[in-house]
Amino acid sequence: MMSWVNNRRSTRLDVRDRGLQYGDGVFETMRVHNGRVRLLAYHLERLEAGCRRLQIKVPSARALRHELERRAALRREAVMKLIVTRGSGSRGYRPSGAERCTRILTLHPLPPSLGDAPVRVRLCATRLGENPLLAGLKTLNRLESVLARSEWSDAAIWEGLMRDAGENIVCGTMSNVFLRRGAALLTPRLDRCGVAGVMRRWVLETAGDLQLRVREARLRWQDLSQAEEVFMCNAVVGIRSVAVIERGRLRLRARSFEAANRLRARLDSL
Amino acid sequence: MMSWVNNRRSTRLDVRDRGLQYGDGVFETMRVHNGRVRLLAYHLERLEAGCRRLQIKVPSARALRHELERRAALRREAVMKLIVTRGSGSRGYRPSGAERCTRILTLHPLPPSLGDAPVRVRLCATRLGENPLLAGLKTLNRLESVLARSEWSDAAIWEGLMRDAGENIVCGTMSNVFLRRGAALLTPRLDRCGVAGVMRRWVLETAGDLQLRVREARLRWQDLSQAEEVFMCNAVVGIRSVAVIERGRLRLRARSFEAANRLRARLDSL
Repeated sequence: MMSWVNNRRSTRLDVRDRGLQYGDGVFETMRVHNGRVRLLAYHLERLEAGCRRLQIKVPSARALRHELERRAALRREAVMKLIVTRGSGSRGYRPSGAERCTRILTLHPLPPSLGDAPVRVRLCATRLGENPLLAGLKTLNRLESVLARSEWSDAAIWEGLMRDAGENIVCGTMSNVFLRRGAALLTPRLDRCGVAGVMRRWVLETAGDLQLRVREARLRWQDLSQAEEVFMCNAVVGIRSVAVIERGRLRLRARSFEAANRLRARLDSL
Repeated sequence: MMSWVNNRRSTRLDVRDRGLQYGDGVFETMRVHNGRVRLLAYHLERLEAGCRRLQIKVPSARALRHELERRAALRREAVMKLIVTRGSGSRGYRPSGAERCTRILTLHPLPPSLGDAPVRVRLCATRLGENPLLAGLKTLNRLESVLARSEWSDAAIWEGLMRDAGENIVCGTMSNVFLRRGAALLTPRLDRCGVAGVMRRWVLETAGDLQLRVREARLRWQDLSQAEEVFMCNAVVGIRSVAVIERGRLRLRARSFEAANRLRARLDSL
């Protein structure tokens, strides 16, 4: 792993940083492909939206873009993670407004098993708490994802689906979910909880080109069971077809991988 | 500020630490009084309960107690904060189980205005998301507290009360709340969200000695408005009587400070 703190090679952070103290910050996990960051503009836009919501002053998008492009060029294929925190502060929840944000950039090898084969996923017991103020953001408050991902250790299960307290399917621990019925493509609304991934945004914006009518909705287990096709997506792996969804001993099996295959072909051509 | 990382003087943390990456850890904020940690046993018990819930391996309570006592003895009056994270790990939400926890201990001066005068508090707009798995714990996922505390900058307002989505009063941004009607003392149940403070525990365990019948309950604005007395508490300030609660232009005024005064006298004698 290579790492930079505020654009300098470093592996160390001030313990007073509010990113550690309170999870007071946001992050982006990006795919470096052929030495370039895939969907970089989307990542920068979401990062800025998150900082705006938390009232964290971000460095200029242009300077940040330049920094990310320069680091991405060091590797042909990699995962790049950028954390932006509110910076160091004195004790107490209230930001003084005088903090200067901290940028922590790391480059990692690609995860193993990035193949295209349809995956097994499971329904998690851990629920997502609802908070409209933070919904959709990729903040550093990720304990629910940690607890959900800790529920299983079977490497054959790629991902877990998470629900809110009201049984609505929201997203995976590290990905978003889509289901298809005919030409209708549906994905959970993320106005109360969940992370709105950049790959989810790309699918929402691209589906129309592939003659799919896409829509955000409240979705439940029953909607999954009635779907012809289910796929999940994130910035690192792209589009991943789901073959099986497990809920205890119950198994949902998908019959089609068609939309995911077409979307993946489109993504690979970017 | 003085700081130690894993029992050595240091102000620096590994950027791979999961405390930063995901808020994957817990903390205690303690009052050092006469060179000793007040309610140390309660702090150690809550810390251990939090680690157990997150499946973080903690150092032995005895070693930790010794470390905290030794550092506390450096100051007559101070705030001591201990963060325990799951430690450094590779990328991905799932803990490998091989992580070794990180302890970050800091000593701070007491906050200003630690007087006994009844305070003004306000009702926050920021809500607490509900998650029974994390309810009661003092985890590093504190963005809701940060957002709530960012709602006001008027130094005359000491604290803000937070509600869940269902309008139940839960706790303050940095404290717990009690209300009294006659000999009945009530405090919100924290089974869905909120932090169960050690001073709250002390009040729950001590109230009986002062002929108060204490009980956890679902409490709403109406319960506050019908209370004879309201007070808030945390480990650093102890017991703080509430004189006024503001909700927009609405003002609730307390008529009595009696129970808080008796509890404070008892606490001061510890």
